[in-house]
Amino acid sequence: MNERYLEDYEAGQTFTTGRLTVDAEQIKTFAAQFDPQPFHLDEEAAKRTVFNGLAASGFHTASLVMRLIVGSEDRPVGGFIGLGIEEMRWPRPVRPGDELHVRIEVLEVRALASRPGQGTIKVRTTALNQNNEAVQVSMNNLLVPCRPGNPALNG
Amino acid sequence: MNERYLEDYEAGQTFTTGRLTVDAEQIKTFAAQFDPQPFHLDEEAAKRTVFNGLAASGFHTASLVMRLIVGSEDRPVGGFIGLGIEEMRWPRPVRPGDELHVRIEVLEVRALASRPGQGTIKVRTTALNQNNEAVQVSMNNLLVPCRPGNPALNG
Repeated sequence: MNERYLEDYEAGQTFTTGRLTVDAEQIKTFAAQFDPQPFHLDEEAAKRTVFNGLAASGFHTASLVMRLIVGSEDRPVGGFIGLGIEEMRWPRPVRPGDELHVRIEVLEVRALASRPGQGTIKVRTTALNQNNEAVQVSMNNLLVPCRPGNPALNG
Repeated sequence: MNERYLEDYEAGQTFTTGRLTVDAEQIKTFAAQFDPQPFHLDEEAAKRTVFNGLAASGFHTASLVMRLIVGSEDRPVGGFIGLGIEEMRWPRPVRPGDELHVRIEVLEVRALASRPGQGTIKVRTTALNQNNEAVQVSMNNLLVPCRPGNPALNG
């Protein structure tokens, strides 16, 4: 595992996660608990909606993306701590049988004047299906600690 | 239930959902599946992190908010279909025992030239805990059908 301090990140870096597959049962189980709408619960009913077939809840997709990111080898020291999301889109639905992986691009690295010893990285996170079609795109800000004893960043 | 067409929405409307309580077991179960990091999985380990105690995964909070919204009385015809999120923040963590409810404010209503018969509403969604402190704030765009036979909007 490569745990990274703020100093180990720079704009332009990209990381890729492992892969996972989502099936109809998982889509329906998540939906029954958190997003019980026909297009996430029932194949037949879903055909008569704007989704034209069973599709994962957007927050199910977001949670699966989180699972892939947390399981990746390259991670900030202290873990993936999201301060917020600037934008999140689902360009196409996740369908039963889809295999997902995630590409993370570092866009910006900043030390925080307000929190000595900590900084943020802004990343673009793109989840892709087995055809390399984007199913989720988001811009996230993550909290990352500075390397201990770095006077330039620890103020 | 009050199913609403695009014409039934206007900027300034607010809706409030019911309430639900989240416990430590639910926080850990969600985390084990989607966000297995110490601050979401284990009370003792969480004390030694930036969260200073067990906290729900941000996507668990987002999923609980979705559950409250989907269960609310006032809903768009066809359901809550998110086109995307413009911004999502978690101003404070959700803790075991927290009781959440959600306030939805309509900010903007637009017919879509590109999709006759459909429009979008932009809403600010604020999830509050039992002390009325915001635990999640987001700006979401939802797809909403126009009332059938409205020539002005169905182009």
